[in-house]
Amino acid sequence: MAQERFVIVGGDAAGMSAAGQTRNLQPDAEIVVYEKSGYSSYSACGIPYYVAGMVDSSSRLVVRSPEEFKKRQNIDVRIRHEVLSIDPGAGKVLVRDLESDREFFDFFGKLLLATGASPFIPPIEGADAKGIFSLGPLESGIAARAYVDEYHPKHAVVIGGGYIGLEMAEAFGCVRDLKVTLVDRSPQIMTTFDPDMAEHIAEAIRGIGTEIRLGEELRGFESKNGRVSAVITDKGTIPADVVVMGLGVRPNSKLAEEAGIALSVRNAVAVDKTMRTSHPAVWAAGDCAATVHLMTGQPFWVALGTVANKMGRVAGIVMGGGEASFPGVVGTAMSKHCGSEVARTGFSEKEAKDLGLAYRTASVKSITRAGYYPGVEPMHVKLLGEEGSGRLLGGQIVGGQGAAKRVDILATAIQGKMTVQNLVDLDLGYAPPFSMAWDPVQVAGRELLKKIR
Amino acid sequence: MAQERFVIVGGDAAGMSAAGQTRNLQPDAEIVVYEKSGYSSYSACGIPYYVAGMVDSSSRLVVRSPEEFKKRQNIDVRIRHEVLSIDPGAGKVLVRDLESDREFFDFFGKLLLATGASPFIPPIEGADAKGIFSLGPLESGIAARAYVDEYHPKHAVVIGGGYIGLEMAEAFGCVRDLKVTLVDRSPQIMTTFDPDMAEHIAEAIRGIGTEIRLGEELRGFESKNGRVSAVITDKGTIPADVVVMGLGVRPNSKLAEEAGIALSVRNAVAVDKTMRTSHPAVWAAGDCAATVHLMTGQPFWVALGTVANKMGRVAGIVMGGGEASFPGVVGTAMSKHCGSEVARTGFSEKEAKDLGLAYRTASVKSITRAGYYPGVEPMHVKLLGEEGSGRLLGGQIVGGQGAAKRVDILATAIQGKMTVQNLVDLDLGYAPPFSMAWDPVQVAGRELLKKIR
Repeated sequence: MAQERFVIVGGDAAGMSAAGQTRNLQPDAEIVVYEKSGYSSYSACGIPYYVAGMVDSSSRLVVRSPEEFKKRQNIDVRIRHEVLSIDPGAGKVLVRDLESDREFFDFFGKLLLATGASPFIPPIEGADAKGIFSLGPLESGIAARAYVDEYHPKHAVVIGGGYIGLEMAEAFGCVRDLKVTLVDRSPQIMTTFDPDMAEHIAEAIRGIGTEIRLGEELRGFESKNGRVSAVITDKGTIPADVVVMGLGVRPNSKLAEEAGIALSVRNAVAVDKTMRTSHPAVWAAGDCAATVHLMTGQPFWVALGTVANKMGRVAGIVMGGGEASFPGVVGTAMSKHCGSEVARTGFSEKEAKDLGLAYRTASVKSITRAGYYPGVEPMHVKLLGEEGSGRLLGGQIVGGQGAAKRVDILATAIQGKMTVQNLVDLDLGYAPPFSMAWDPVQVAGRELLKKIR
Repeated sequence: MAQERFVIVGGDAAGMSAAGQTRNLQPDAEIVVYEKSGYSSYSACGIPYYVAGMVDSSSRLVVRSPEEFKKRQNIDVRIRHEVLSIDPGAGKVLVRDLESDREFFDFFGKLLLATGASPFIPPIEGADAKGIFSLGPLESGIAARAYVDEYHPKHAVVIGGGYIGLEMAEAFGCVRDLKVTLVDRSPQIMTTFDPDMAEHIAEAIRGIGTEIRLGEELRGFESKNGRVSAVITDKGTIPADVVVMGLGVRPNSKLAEEAGIALSVRNAVAVDKTMRTSHPAVWAAGDCAATVHLMTGQPFWVALGTVANKMGRVAGIVMGGGEASFPGVVGTAMSKHCGSEVARTGFSEKEAKDLGLAYRTASVKSITRAGYYPGVEPMHVKLLGEEGSGRLLGGQIVGGQGAAKRVDILATAIQGKMTVQNLVDLDLGYAPPFSMAWDPVQVAGRELLKKIR
């Protein structure tokens, strides 16, 4: 019997995680990966740090090159190849070689869509000026870095106060030492955080000299000699030598949609826990696919490298004939802005409210280490718990070094369906360089207990 | 009706946590605390850092002074007062004022024993020479610091390779820049870790120039002019200008024992989950009391500041008439040696073996951050899981900055009775400054899954 042929569309986190797992289970199968960009298996999350100059060479963001995949695992990664359409019924894909512009069909027994997500770029005039960047594939980061290195901008404008915005404001403000203006049309930055916690983040950002302009909407750009010179908003004109747009990303689900494969929330590809789509020969994983929010049991979409890796691993195992499943997420995310670490998991107040939950909150200002230990820094923790059940519903953290990864305690507790009392009872690690005798998340837990009892 | 009188023996973590909680519930009751040392509510865990000189003044280790307790909470803390005996039946305690040597009786309605633990000091000749320290009450730390400041020792010998030994070797070797020799009679340091993980810790300690002598037993001391000059072991003589003995601690349970109160493992005072002893008017909390190991349901004793605080809080609430309980621990502990962080939770191999569990292990060498992110450091993770049930049994971590607090993920997972598969499925925080896309504990979990399936 001929070996099965596996075709994977997209050669980054999910696609290459899958390819490796499938190869483990199918030592002799043909595995072909089509990747539109010029790079395989790069860390998209690392792009802000590359633009900042904290990572010297873009090659350091590439976990494994196509040559290495070929040599080590006999996985055939074809970069600069765009899949134009898929035909699950016929088991074929139409591919364009972007170098030669040649188009051809390829055939699969099993297909994985790992097409990722793309930055949302609003249809705004002047956005084609040089010096305006949206960070997507590695090439976009390389271009942004080259621009900054070449033109030495003095004033950066970052549009969008989400994770990418936060990280690019750090790159420009803390590392590159530019004047930075952060613009967001919302009344707060970091909208996955509650307004009070987002304000702590905003304070930290302002504290390093970055201007934050909230409730202000992008209208256009001005340029000089083809290079961006200003950002125009509904409230004014902001001089800008370089602009990064971080207006969120959208799942690349067009191939699936056009092939009649079912979509889910946010137009992400619908999959079951084994990453299988509505077509039995097609899987989807990573930023293009929906998952499940474990606290609601409902479809949920999040574009995160760690989730993409986990989904890809499961897809690869299942496609290869093994057993695996990806149960879902609880909305954990984290980031860093200069000296401030931020993290969240579970429900925000808005989410709890939208679900009609009887939630209460507790917020504490605590410290990252023992009070006398050198380097101790403030740390804000906010927790949500449910009245009656006592269930831990969510948590948000903003603080100094060592603050953010404590979100893992909360994420684990939530995933383990723990109550706030359970959180307070946890036997967490303590030593003066790392924590107070009561971990700050437990200090917050104690406060919350008083309210939900 | 007259207000109840609460007497607390011991004014540190457990005793003062309890006093505060009782006061919250009993605004008008008399609360008297007898503390043998000259300080209330000091951080014993901070003593190594004070001796190191990382903390400038010993007063910074004192969370709250007797005067502050009196003023803020009307709690009567009598320092330099030793309780000589207790009579639960008569509701009285015999107290000696160590300043005046006057003895007197005091009376209680409810009594808390929060007498802590004391360093084990072997009956060895020459141990009364100056420059030999065992770290117990704050005074012992002040004396050690003063000695180092006055005599500028060049060679420190630390006897005992446990947590205190590790921290004092750091204090002398990394901060004070002395030549350090660490002596332990066991074949490994840090015996709550498996030998392979302890070896990673030993490598880190040797890496900063400290000599480690294992399987070597203390026999005596030499001194010149009344000051220690050498440590004599069964294998030789080690020159020493200053010596710290970290040979473990023992619960101070003599008062309880002499009063006929039941003891538990390691001679710690037996208590139920509300910290009540075998006598209905007497509670015990902190390092003098036993607790429960949540994985075995059996009595367990551990002397740790965080556990003492938690026990004290529960004792204080219950004594005050409220409801609370302390379920127990899973054996979490952590420490730091120069740039190396170490942590453990759950069962070690020895513990799993002693219980006859069908366990398997997985060890990985991973990294603390994204590989390209500045400051990334190695991180070893070892996990234990049970065959059949798939239950996560324990974990040990040795690594660079950010490594050790990940033990909280494992402790939470164990306390939540999670399987290794559950661990791998956790939605943990990820961003390049904090982790790889797969957290190292999950990388280890994936390896362990291959073995216990």
